[in-house]
Amino acid sequence: MATGIDGDSYAGQPPYGPMSAPLQGKELPTFRYALGAAPNIPRDGGWSKEATVVNFPVSEKLAGVLMQLEPGALRELHWHANAAEWAYIIRGRCRVTTIDPQDQCEIVDFSEGDVWYFPRGHGHSIQGLGPGPCEFILIFDNGYFSEFGTFSITDWIGHVPAEVLAKNFKQPAATFANFPKKEVYLVKGPVPPPLPADPAPGSLNAPPETHRYRMLAQKPQEFPGGSMRIVSRKEFPISTTMTGALLRIKPGALRELHWHPNADEWQYYIKGRARMTVFGSGGRARTEEYGPGDVGYAPQGFGHYIENIGDDELELVLAFNDGEYQSISATAWFAANPPELLATNFGVPASTFAGFPKGETPMPD
Amino acid sequence: MATGIDGDSYAGQPPYGPMSAPLQGKELPTFRYALGAAPNIPRDGGWSKEATVVNFPVSEKLAGVLMQLEPGALRELHWHANAAEWAYIIRGRCRVTTIDPQDQCEIVDFSEGDVWYFPRGHGHSIQGLGPGPCEFILIFDNGYFSEFGTFSITDWIGHVPAEVLAKNFKQPAATFANFPKKEVYLVKGPVPPPLPADPAPGSLNAPPETHRYRMLAQKPQEFPGGSMRIVSRKEFPISTTMTGALLRIKPGALRELHWHPNADEWQYYIKGRARMTVFGSGGRARTEEYGPGDVGYAPQGFGHYIENIGDDELELVLAFNDGEYQSISATAWFAANPPELLATNFGVPASTFAGFPKGETPMPD
Amino acid sequence: MATGIDGDSYAGQPPYGPMSAPLQGKELPTFRYALGAAPNIPRDGGWSKEATVVNFPVSEKLAGVLMQLEPGALRELHWHANAAEWAYIIRGRCRVTTIDPQDQCEIVDFSEGDVWYFPRGHGHSIQGLGPGPCEFILIFDNGYFSEFGTFSITDWIGHVPAEVLAKNFKQPAATFANFPKKEVYLVKGPVPPPLPADPAPGSLNAPPETHRYRMLAQKPQEFPGGSMRIVSRKEFPISTTMTGALLRIKPGALRELHWHPNADEWQYYIKGRARMTVFGSGGRARTEEYGPGDVGYAPQGFGHYIENIGDDELELVLAFNDGEYQSISATAWFAANPPELLATNFGVPASTFAGFPKGETPMPD
Repeated sequence: MATGIDGDSYAGQPPYGPMSAPLQGKELPTFRYALGAAPNIPRDGGWSKEATVVNFPVSEKLAGVLMQLEPGALRELHWHANAAEWAYIIRGRCRVTTIDPQDQCEIVDFSEGDVWYFPRGHGHSIQGLGPGPCEFILIFDNGYFSEFGTFSITDWIGHVPAEVLAKNFKQPAATFANFPKKEVYLVKGPVPPPLPADPAPGSLNAPPETHRYRMLAQKPQEFPGGSMRIVSRKEFPISTTMTGALLRIKPGALRELHWHPNADEWQYYIKGRARMTVFGSGGRARTEEYGPGDVGYAPQGFGHYIENIGDDELELVLAFNDGEYQSISATAWFAANPPELLATNFGVPASTFAGFPKGETPMPD
Repeated sequence: MATGIDGDSYAGQPPYGPMSAPLQGKELPTFRYALGAAPNIPRDGGWSKEATVVNFPVSEKLAGVLMQLEPGALRELHWHANAAEWAYIIRGRCRVTTIDPQDQCEIVDFSEGDVWYFPRGHGHSIQGLGPGPCEFILIFDNGYFSEFGTFSITDWIGHVPAEVLAKNFKQPAATFANFPKKEVYLVKGPVPPPLPADPAPGSLNAPPETHRYRMLAQKPQEFPGGSMRIVSRKEFPISTTMTGALLRIKPGALRELHWHPNADEWQYYIKGRARMTVFGSGGRARTEEYGPGDVGYAPQGFGHYIENIGDDELELVLAFNDGEYQSISATAWFAANPPELLATNFGVPASTFAGFPKGETPMPD
Repeated sequence: MATGIDGDSYAGQPPYGPMSAPLQGKELPTFRYALGAAPNIPRDGGWSKEATVVNFPVSEKLAGVLMQLEPGALRELHWHANAAEWAYIIRGRCRVTTIDPQDQCEIVDFSEGDVWYFPRGHGHSIQGLGPGPCEFILIFDNGYFSEFGTFSITDWIGHVPAEVLAKNFKQPAATFANFPKKEVYLVKGPVPPPLPADPAPGSLNAPPETHRYRMLAQKPQEFPGGSMRIVSRKEFPISTTMTGALLRIKPGALRELHWHPNADEWQYYIKGRARMTVFGSGGRARTEEYGPGDVGYAPQGFGHYIENIGDDELELVLAFNDGEYQSISATAWFAANPPELLATNFGVPASTFAGFPKGETPMPD
């Protein structure tokens, strides 16, 4: 299964070189990080916590932040120097403002099941709208994204000489006397009013590609074992460097054996209990269990499956560090080869494969 | 000399940074590795041996494997997580099966002089067809390709819990009881029957771009000193990240002084005796001799020539880590500059250059 | 402010990973290197000196060379294995010859305010034309460009066996007896005659994209505080991996607060006195002063402004390691957000922002 492909797609693949250090040992490292169980870092109007290579060493290509905003709480204007940002809204509502290098601005509201994508280095803010808190998972296409890479407006303005601010903004220097001197990060404020239903004449300088994709609203692909929604650059053109997915797997069912030839996979488990075996070649494989709040990771090219081992539906969000979705499944591969070849390969009679599936079944039950 | 160029070509160039460590010393390292003289690693139905950065440190961007398969011997279903694969058939015949992310499959036979290309991460198998053994050289666009990067189907299936295999393949768990528990790699089997001359109606889900290019069948470029065949993505569209070539040089003749601005070059010498000087700037150059079974390496941008110093034809296969072929020759460069400029440059009379070639001569005799 | 953008632009962005080491400390390193004050390295017919990561550690992605050629002095035929080259002529006149992989050659004259771009690995030479010396600044898109990366024709030819040169150039081996045995680099010679006004019939094999852009001749963008000229691949198609700019800022005025989401910036100060604050997130900022001959550096994504703190016009040349120009300014960002959001963000009344600029002002006075 894969979306359309073009000649460009390999230009964007990660550079060649050695496997990342955590994957070079005789034993594979853990592919699980209990983000949900980690302590929240309290902020004024919410909390956040993160998974990066610092606490989850295998995740060199992708990182994540779990964040909650109270109504009116503002994650201030900021940008990320070294990563694009992809997000999925787990619950609640929030408003985002963005700016791009063409000075084009989008102000748009998000609710449960919506996705955003901010290209690397583009400015943005996020504000809770209520009712109730808004919780979302942010995924970045760089495992090193956090340290020294997030630039906040108050931190910047607080470090520029007042006389330069005066010239820059055409204001008396005294205007800036009460501005914060250090990073605000998150701050409580009033809930903003609803956006106008129709833009006023002459009020917009909007980008041609929206930052919002309503993933939960997408009609899912339905399989015997569950459903899958995929949002790649094909469905969401601004998302040039990342692809996301929402998987719902029935009790006892699984996302079948497969691998992604072009991308690493970062998972956030929302509901249910799962088992995943990550296969790393050279006789190396690691089977671990995952539950709500856990992060999982499957490196580019590594074989894996995800099995629902609980009594309830399993729900998880995925993101990949490539704008094109590509996967190859074991069932499709078996089906594409003559039974006689499989017989030689596995040392069993060719008749063994007579009843095998005739093609991929992304989620068998 | 170069094939067509477009604006994309520099997007795919290796990232900038320091020269690789082996090239940073006052003396250049060896650019020769005696792959043919290294011991064969015996396998069930053939043998293999490899040249990677582990035993040939300068080759950071490309690696190679020499392999031989007896008739019926199967190099099992596998994929490479961190490299694309390019191959040249030295002798014999074999059959390849492939799968891509669109589940498209190609099953196709190869004989002497044929080339294949498998994109990074795509599944494939290789089986000897006979009569006699099949020998080929595999070249990968990552000098680190081997360790922890080759994923075999038996190794994978052998590490997945039986109850998951049962769900995945819709079979009783007992079906997998006799499957191998560790990697098979190479295994003897019966020679498969000939492929049907015409595909049966409804039998194909073939990829739009074939994995086979018949390089030896290509009409070569003929020069006074020999002939050259080039297979880049222009001739062989699936080969987006690599270019190959087959050079035949007459006794005493040479592939002229040139360099490749966009790619590293990995060489496998099939027949004859050669001399190559690799020029590395800063007063550094290294002249070495090469014979059958040797691997040579010319880093991106390094000047070099290849001279036939034997009594018989010299034959070698090359691969580059870029889908576009680019080279610049010293004779073309001299011809493109006024004699007065060359006179100043070399401190000799302008008349010195009167009889120099008026353009490139890829293989002077 | 940015030039046109397309889907390709992120394919070329630097690979993700950690921030470069000099930017990982609690304090930011210096972003200034006094290239003009460094000793000239005398050469036969001129001098040169350089700024690379060796002497200016923060500049990992870009490097520069300041060079002067007397009339007739020839910077010999050479190429750079690991960087493209961008240049700005500060004063005087010179002639350039080039060769590309299609053997296409351009011979063209440059004068003050002209720019060139040579793709990585393409051959070129530079010769002073007079009257008076020609001075220029070269900027390379690799901070490691210099060591082991510059390949000169005399160094190469001097290391090839004479009998191979004889075959290669179809000359007696004695022809090369008086050629230099080591690198010439720069050598005095006669000033070449003017180029013919019109090419002779059949005399050209010219590349479709010229290597010269007349930046000073470009009609500048004019602002209250000065003027700006930008030359990206949009204006100068061969310049696929770099963008340049010429800034002239009035006394007391500034290039406003902004950052570049896609590129590092390397600056060479020609005239006047400047102050720049580079903001690096995490409470880190560094304010330094710059004068004629100084090099400045602003890493990709780092906020900065450039203020003219002298009594005369400030003039500087910039180059970026991306063929597309992108910047985002603080004033445009403030203007794109509701005053109520800014009020929450900065903890001041919304009325504070009533008189702020309504959009970007690249150079306020």
